[in-house]
Amino acid sequence: MRVVQKFGGSSLKNVELLRAVARRVHETVQSGHDVVVVVSAMGDTTDELLERAQAVSGGESPSNLDFLMMTGEMQSAALMAMELSRLGTPAQALSGAQAGIYTNREFGQARIHEVKPQLLEKLLAQHTTPVVTGFQGVSADGFYTTLGRGGSDLTAIALASALTADSCEIYSDVAGVFTADPRVVPNARALQSLSYDEMLELASQGAQVLQTQAVLYARQSGVTVQARSTFEPDPGTRIEITDVDDAHPVTAVALDVHLTKLGLVGVPDRPGVAAFACERLAQAGINIDLVFQALSHENARADIALTVADRDRARAEAVCEETLRELGGSALVVDGDIAKVSAVGAGVRNHVGVAATLFRALADASINIQMISTSEIKVSCIVARADATRALNQVHDAFGLG
Amino acid sequence: MRVVQKFGGSSLKNVELLRAVARRVHETVQSGHDVVVVVSAMGDTTDELLERAQAVSGGESPSNLDFLMMTGEMQSAALMAMELSRLGTPAQALSGAQAGIYTNREFGQARIHEVKPQLLEKLLAQHTTPVVTGFQGVSADGFYTTLGRGGSDLTAIALASALTADSCEIYSDVAGVFTADPRVVPNARALQSLSYDEMLELASQGAQVLQTQAVLYARQSGVTVQARSTFEPDPGTRIEITDVDDAHPVTAVALDVHLTKLGLVGVPDRPGVAAFACERLAQAGINIDLVFQALSHENARADIALTVADRDRARAEAVCEETLRELGGSALVVDGDIAKVSAVGAGVRNHVGVAATLFRALADASINIQMISTSEIKVSCIVARADATRALNQVHDAFGLG
Repeated sequence: MRVVQKFGGSSLKNVELLRAVARRVHETVQSGHDVVVVVSAMGDTTDELLERAQAVSGGESPSNLDFLMMTGEMQSAALMAMELSRLGTPAQALSGAQAGIYTNREFGQARIHEVKPQLLEKLLAQHTTPVVTGFQGVSADGFYTTLGRGGSDLTAIALASALTADSCEIYSDVAGVFTADPRVVPNARALQSLSYDEMLELASQGAQVLQTQAVLYARQSGVTVQARSTFEPDPGTRIEITDVDDAHPVTAVALDVHLTKLGLVGVPDRPGVAAFACERLAQAGINIDLVFQALSHENARADIALTVADRDRARAEAVCEETLRELGGSALVVDGDIAKVSAVGAGVRNHVGVAATLFRALADASINIQMISTSEIKVSCIVARADATRALNQVHDAFGLG
Repeated sequence: MRVVQKFGGSSLKNVELLRAVARRVHETVQSGHDVVVVVSAMGDTTDELLERAQAVSGGESPSNLDFLMMTGEMQSAALMAMELSRLGTPAQALSGAQAGIYTNREFGQARIHEVKPQLLEKLLAQHTTPVVTGFQGVSADGFYTTLGRGGSDLTAIALASALTADSCEIYSDVAGVFTADPRVVPNARALQSLSYDEMLELASQGAQVLQTQAVLYARQSGVTVQARSTFEPDPGTRIEITDVDDAHPVTAVALDVHLTKLGLVGVPDRPGVAAFACERLAQAGINIDLVFQALSHENARADIALTVADRDRARAEAVCEETLRELGGSALVVDGDIAKVSAVGAGVRNHVGVAATLFRALADASINIQMISTSEIKVSCIVARADATRALNQVHDAFGLG
């Protein structure tokens, strides 16, 4: 078996953890597998390097910042390879460039164009375990790049694809993907498997588990990913092409409490008004999560409600106020006390009852639904933030996920 | 003009010094020169990285140790390139591999085989200043290597040769090469120029100025090196092909107080005995500095005296004791209280009077000469360590160097 094992910063916080990870890799090699290790920078290294860059120049030089940042992963890769060698597993640290990860030249957020794993194949043939620096590559014209923070997952999946590995294991301090955030829903349990699309929809609670760009790459290249904990023996969660389980159309529920609702009250009730408001926000680089146009009033006026991420709140308010003036609306209402409860599952599209079950569950708990949104594999409701925890537990139980 | 400027660790001790160096480079670029910068790691980075390697594995993995160590120079190169960019001089950090420095695979002490400076030429054509990490390269099969400590000088000289640069400036905290160590000889003065061979002979006092391997590379490739201080305006010392100045056959004097004398007393006085003793030491990897066989005694016995570096003393004693037993000698005499005074100059070979001047100077000061050695460009005497400072000043004056 050929296995890619990726260990993030939380698995490499200090030398003791690094040694524990090395033992784990060593045991996998000892049991007869060919392993390619991908590592992030240790502990706070990345933040420390950013601070040093700020101290010198304010970080205005993206290509040189990438050059600086990559040293963090290089150091952890070198130490990991040394420790593996000491344990008796010959190992060699490699940069993204050496591993053949070719990217475009968007420094700081480069995208992988191609993987040429010749040096990796050569090392594997010599029974040397490559330890590859995550989150970095090299442009076609020879400049080092980084894939952006969290890009180590992407490195692992891209290598697994290029090496046609049998397995790609992403280790973190979380034991996989859960039916709900266990900090909010006490009886949440780890999923054995879920689909790429479900994983994408669960990004809000899966962010610690697997980065979104990495899931997209895995879906595109068909790499099966095993998300598991460095510190627990559980096999974790497989992210793969799954069949729909008709008995359980919903796989997991998710909660997002980092949203703000903006209401444009009393705008003209004519076609294109909602689109106009959305366009203005898009031009300002603000993503809209949900949008909802209320029924027209007698005086041919309508209300438009939309939600944005909390971090975009101030900018979104400014854009919406100007839009309101241009459209001739009457008021802007801003509400930060909201939460979004979602039921996610590949079976949602085929089961008309999913939305009904969700609404009933919330109604039974006397929780008011402010907005509704549905997609192929998700039904979401906006509720008051005060009701968020209760709503998530209610929905989790209603779909029998506990 | 195309200029290579190399700045060592003493010039990059902290961010303030790094900024001062960047201003210096920026001014050189502003005045119309094409500059390639070579940097060492900042301050204690190299020692810190070594410590981290020791903490993990005892450093038993040379290729991974090189991978770790190179991050020190990468960080200083990145910060330097950022600071240059901030000042308005577009700059790009490059690793040894990116700079096209190809080496053999002797990790930790790799030798440069070839320099392919395409990326450097491309950046220079775009008026971007390359900032190259010193002391490292890449093997033909793609593994990163280091040239060994101090190899940053070598990087600069190799790049100057490959780029046919007009000048190669090696900056340190010393204002060039002196007629004698100024800490020992108060009236020593900086030399305007000296030859490669003289520089090699002065290695003991020139170590802070220029590394021996780098001088050999410069001699072989004909690169003129300017050794100067980062912190003083003086032009420093030029190391180049020089004409012999008949009026001053001796360029500088040198002192080495890190030697031990070993005397094999009463060994058989027959051909090959000295060679046998020297071979034994060579087999043990111990360099002999001087060797001297005393006149035979009446009973066909001789004394052999030789000097080794203090750091080899214990091992050399063990080898000599065994050699003495094998040869049937009578005693081993070890004397650590010695010093070597040398007069160095390209004119020594043509001036028979040099040795005589040296001996006369020491005799006039009532300093006893224990051993003598001469080469093409050097005359050396072993004296008591207690006489070392007085001897060096005496000889310095005798050759009119003050």
